[in-house]
Amino acid sequence: MQIKPSIYWLFIFMPVALVLEHAGVPAPYVFFSAALAIVPIASLIVRATEQIATRTGDAIGGLLNATFGNAPELIISFVALKAGLFDMVRAALIGAILANILLALGLAFFLGGLRYRDQDYNPVAARVYSSMMLIAVVSLAVPSAFSRFFAPEETIRSETLLNVGLAVVLLVAYALYLVFMLKTHPGAFAAKGGHVEEDEGARWSLTRAVGSLVGASLLAAWMSEILVGAAEGTGTALGMTQVFIGIVFVAIVGGAAESGSAIVMARKNRMDMTIGIALGSSIQIALFVAPVLVLASYFTAPQPLELSFGRAEIGALLMAVLMGTVVVGDGRSNWYKGIQLITVYLIIAFMFYFLPVLTHSS
Amino acid sequence: MQIKPSIYWLFIFMPVALVLEHAGVPAPYVFFSAALAIVPIASLIVRATEQIATRTGDAIGGLLNATFGNAPELIISFVALKAGLFDMVRAALIGAILANILLALGLAFFLGGLRYRDQDYNPVAARVYSSMMLIAVVSLAVPSAFSRFFAPEETIRSETLLNVGLAVVLLVAYALYLVFMLKTHPGAFAAKGGHVEEDEGARWSLTRAVGSLVGASLLAAWMSEILVGAAEGTGTALGMTQVFIGIVFVAIVGGAAESGSAIVMARKNRMDMTIGIALGSSIQIALFVAPVLVLASYFTAPQPLELSFGRAEIGALLMAVLMGTVVVGDGRSNWYKGIQLITVYLIIAFMFYFLPVLTHSS
Amino acid sequence: MQIKPSIYWLFIFMPVALVLEHAGVPAPYVFFSAALAIVPIASLIVRATEQIATRTGDAIGGLLNATFGNAPELIISFVALKAGLFDMVRAALIGAILANILLALGLAFFLGGLRYRDQDYNPVAARVYSSMMLIAVVSLAVPSAFSRFFAPEETIRSETLLNVGLAVVLLVAYALYLVFMLKTHPGAFAAKGGHVEEDEGARWSLTRAVGSLVGASLLAAWMSEILVGAAEGTGTALGMTQVFIGIVFVAIVGGAAESGSAIVMARKNRMDMTIGIALGSSIQIALFVAPVLVLASYFTAPQPLELSFGRAEIGALLMAVLMGTVVVGDGRSNWYKGIQLITVYLIIAFMFYFLPVLTHSS
Repeated sequence: MQIKPSIYWLFIFMPVALVLEHAGVPAPYVFFSAALAIVPIASLIVRATEQIATRTGDAIGGLLNATFGNAPELIISFVALKAGLFDMVRAALIGAILANILLALGLAFFLGGLRYRDQDYNPVAARVYSSMMLIAVVSLAVPSAFSRFFAPEETIRSETLLNVGLAVVLLVAYALYLVFMLKTHPGAFAAKGGHVEEDEGARWSLTRAVGSLVGASLLAAWMSEILVGAAEGTGTALGMTQVFIGIVFVAIVGGAAESGSAIVMARKNRMDMTIGIALGSSIQIALFVAPVLVLASYFTAPQPLELSFGRAEIGALLMAVLMGTVVVGDGRSNWYKGIQLITVYLIIAFMFYFLPVLTHSS
Repeated sequence: MQIKPSIYWLFIFMPVALVLEHAGVPAPYVFFSAALAIVPIASLIVRATEQIATRTGDAIGGLLNATFGNAPELIISFVALKAGLFDMVRAALIGAILANILLALGLAFFLGGLRYRDQDYNPVAARVYSSMMLIAVVSLAVPSAFSRFFAPEETIRSETLLNVGLAVVLLVAYALYLVFMLKTHPGAFAAKGGHVEEDEGARWSLTRAVGSLVGASLLAAWMSEILVGAAEGTGTALGMTQVFIGIVFVAIVGGAAESGSAIVMARKNRMDMTIGIALGSSIQIALFVAPVLVLASYFTAPQPLELSFGRAEIGALLMAVLMGTVVVGDGRSNWYKGIQLITVYLIIAFMFYFLPVLTHSS
Repeated sequence: MQIKPSIYWLFIFMPVALVLEHAGVPAPYVFFSAALAIVPIASLIVRATEQIATRTGDAIGGLLNATFGNAPELIISFVALKAGLFDMVRAALIGAILANILLALGLAFFLGGLRYRDQDYNPVAARVYSSMMLIAVVSLAVPSAFSRFFAPEETIRSETLLNVGLAVVLLVAYALYLVFMLKTHPGAFAAKGGHVEEDEGARWSLTRAVGSLVGASLLAAWMSEILVGAAEGTGTALGMTQVFIGIVFVAIVGGAAESGSAIVMARKNRMDMTIGIALGSSIQIALFVAPVLVLASYFTAPQPLELSFGRAEIGALLMAVLMGTVVVGDGRSNWYKGIQLITVYLIIAFMFYFLPVLTHSS
């Protein structure tokens, strides 16, 4: 019998994380075990969603994929929100956007470019993603400007109204984006070489698909609690700030499944899928996950979640989006574009590693 | 006899505003009546200018249109300048640029896109507008950076020289832009489908055209005084800051005539006109109206006007210009591009609504 | 006998600078004589490097050109570094990038555009330069954000590590950029009309080329010491800050040779060379000269050089790069694009002229 390399081998880290947590070993071991355990769970969620999506029409399927695609990020964030770790939730949001635009896309361009000299994709879709990402920057910069300049000293008139109002505007814009993408202009997002059939193995039964989705979501929530519980101790043990843990590690764990798909697609020269997964994910996080978390925080969290980021975070986000816009805009990628994106990611990660205080309070 | 719907019916608000002002009703009623009365007056100014322009050669005609196109904004601003309402003048300038790039263009794209699936226009012209708008951002950011960081504590060496010098640089750049547009490279701004003949009704006699222009300008000045006089009271009554009143209401009123034309052109699928009106207007405001106001303030206002904006305003402007650049750059529009622009406008308007203090002093 | 106009006539300013320095005349005379003397020396360095490069293969030749092309900037900066004039070194770095993107390219577009109506070049290369310049902005913004917000009050954890780490990341990215440009994708940088043979006079002997390179470098170091020595006095005498002297005069002197070539190429309608020289230079300064100076400062300077710029500098840089990206992106230039770039340069130079204090400490 042949043992196939598979992401699902990482499931072994689930019991490992459980045992380590109860054995009282230092927090970093628990944290990284839980992190590794979440990767195959996230992958299972993504795959089960795809299986359910094949049963429905294209539109509903797209909607399902778009909504459940970021389920791992949502679940981790919910758990952290309930635990009152607001800094980590915020950091993980920004970090997930940065990781998708710079790291996942950079690795995909680089590894794809090592195999194919130049890789083409649909530049019209890239432009839509770019403008959506700019909206994301604006939508996160506005509440940040607020709490940075005014909140500490002065009362903000109906701060709740601002938060909720913005969340509603973003969710409406996101809903219309789905209408645009799935209904009125699907062609703008079509792959250049025509639609390629998925060949990802056998079709699941509906029971198996739904069961996997529910089961994996529960497992993800469970592991997330362990992960989040060990995060603070890990930061202290490794001399890292809460923000750095959130912006790099939690963000990469939450998006590992999609990042992996984006890279696999690039190696298969299916760049439209790569771009769609990496940039689509970052848009979802800003325009769907973030406002949902804000609205949910009024019900589940100890206090409302404000999307108040520091200048360093907003600056990093703006530069990432501009970089993504320029690099992606011409519909053609090569290995060096990957290096460019990864370089910017490294510089930004460096910055957050050395930031001595929580930036959002500066 | 049939009653045609027409913007000129709004002239009824002229006597209404006058009566309300003398009746001593609360300021908001006076303010919004005067605002509504300015819309048809602005429309008359624009139309009279076009009529005069048909008598002259193309170059002079273009120059006339370019110069008088923003006459309503200039008149309102002059009146506010004389009244010493510097915050409102500044807010109306920024607001007019934002309204043109985001709201007027957004509505035009959206409403045009509901009728036509995709609408094409000349991307070369769009790129010229983008770079002009970036110059506008730089030209407003520089004096702002100045007074923000240095003015309060330290004496600025020859502040007058900076203000006047910048104004002269911008006016020269604007004059050369007209030379470029009208003389050396008119082709870069040509509509893709060739020139379409205007069919806006009968030709006026020269006397009527000039008379209308002079008469409408006087009416505009009169209504502007009522509008500006009621602005402060309106803000207090509605719980809005001077900046919000200027950045949203005054800006929309001043640009209503052009915004209307931009939308009408989009419904007729003449997108090159739409882009030219909306983006051309915002460029004129930054590179022509603003420096003229600065220079004029040395003669007519109680003290010189400094173009010192807060970080929120400059940030909003930069994001609007980047958004405009990305959305407009490929020479093709659809309904969702309109939604994107409007979303950014709403988020920014939200921000200014909730800003508790005058931002330029922060 | 005919006297040809030549840049080498400026060598006359070398003895002039020496005499003036020892005659004890006011600093500005010494400064500007030394500045004029550096121009032909820089030109000689560039030319000698080209001659050596013709002996080697294309790859090594390109590497030589890329590395020695900014030798004048490196030499001047080293001298200023040793003298402990950190503000001037930093200002000259930023200034050189601004001068290349805005002034050299602007003049080249303008003067080229006066002769040719429209000039075409390879837009693929322009896009690579744009994204490299964005990396440059990020790489300079990150350490600046650091020392601005944190350095004064708090200890930065292993500041050395941040500085050195960033420098290494940038040098690796730059090395890979050379691999990309010279090895894997030279076609992306090819001129549109095919390769045009250089016709810059006779070929030098290797001895003459190497001798010229060494000799000119020594002369450059000598004149740089005079220039740097007179800089402070010049600032005081003319009422200009150290930053302004560095950002405008030192930067223009250091880059005069390349700027001249960029303009000459534009007049010959060889725009790919123009773009390559002007933008390539600004990339080299940020990704090669700056990290080399940081690393060198640990050995030669009184204290480590931090790349900590003020908001005004980083803002100016970002706007210059965005402007360059938008203006250059479509592969076609005209005279007005030149005016646009020059206008932004003038506005920024204005700002630094009037900045009353050293901005990096604000």
